[in-house]
Amino acid sequence: MDRNFRVNLVNSLSGYKSANLIATLGGNGVENLAIFSSVVHLGSDPALLGFIQRPVGDHSHTYKNIVDSGVYTINHVSSEHIQQAHSTSARFDKDVSEFKACGFTPRYALGFKAPFVQEAAVQIGMRFVQEIKIELNDTRLMIGQIEHVFVQDGLVDSDGSLLLENANGICISGLDTYCQAQRIARFPYAKVIPV
Amino acid sequence: MDRNFRVNLVNSLSGYKSANLIATLGGNGVENLAIFSSVVHLGSDPALLGFIQRPVGDHSHTYKNIVDSGVYTINHVSSEHIQQAHSTSARFDKDVSEFKACGFTPRYALGFKAPFVQEAAVQIGMRFVQEIKIELNDTRLMIGQIEHVFVQDGLVDSDGSLLLENANGICISGLDTYCQAQRIARFPYAKVIPV
Repeated sequence: MDRNFRVNLVNSLSGYKSANLIATLGGNGVENLAIFSSVVHLGSDPALLGFIQRPVGDHSHTYKNIVDSGVYTINHVSSEHIQQAHSTSARFDKDVSEFKACGFTPRYALGFKAPFVQEAAVQIGMRFVQEIKIELNDTRLMIGQIEHVFVQDGLVDSDGSLLLENANGICISGLDTYCQAQRIARFPYAKVIPV
Repeated sequence: MDRNFRVNLVNSLSGYKSANLIATLGGNGVENLAIFSSVVHLGSDPALLGFIQRPVGDHSHTYKNIVDSGVYTINHVSSEHIQQAHSTSARFDKDVSEFKACGFTPRYALGFKAPFVQEAAVQIGMRFVQEIKIELNDTRLMIGQIEHVFVQDGLVDSDGSLLLENANGICISGLDTYCQAQRIARFPYAKVIPV
């Protein structure tokens, strides 16, 4: 199988993926921003999110900043910003901030040492907790605990669910296909009904 | 924060999630089927997918069957089957097959000892490779290697990407909200353009 064909196919096989911008602050004072499609819910209590870090190299600024500073933010991508968000995946030099290069605005809050993305409808302040090396392919599961959550007005439903559609939330298919999602149904907690 | 409110909120914070049915065969001959929203791409070569297994208990039939048999299948959920797929999350007894109880059809192929979901447009045969315990909350990252892929006609683009929309692919928000996704843009590999 041709390598590109294989990469595109395998990247599509997990189904739709979340689209998040992870932001960090480097020791050199440069704010880093990068799109990730692998953020995954790990648990609600403690509130943990994970993401998959690819093999670490010279350009892994996000990884290095997280390990060094102990904090990062996860910010939802909306349809208004998909092109800008995608462009953060280019290999910018270490001294270039993707915030500036790609047109996003850093915002600081609560004495938290990582920048939030002001344009994001959902902004999450994360405390780095643990990295778990996956020896099979040299990737890492990066685990963080949620410390702060900022949500745009009108997104939190009465039961705590987020109405992501109201913020034009999007998801990703494969490596580079951006999709708008529209709710079609919500079902109650599933129970076995004795007959 | 009220417990339900918290669970709903935290489950929404990662953004849209994939919707997959994981199917296994038990040592007792009962075929098990359960919906998961945590399947994540780990790498293309070797082709690895992971998913998050909640704390293992008496009802963790999927987990036990995977560890015992070494194989499982991951099957995409489409909009036609969201109610049936959601109903697999109910706590059926060990001797009840969710295939039958929820209206799906098991299909065997290639001497592979786990059932595929015939109704799914994308069916993936997985070889269990490794489980990584996440001590923080007693969950596990379950890692498998892709061995077989069946894709409905008309879903594979010329470059290998899957056209999930053509199969009415869906994603999940929070615990129980099912969403249809529609592609809005595709961008080329991002490069830094020298100025």
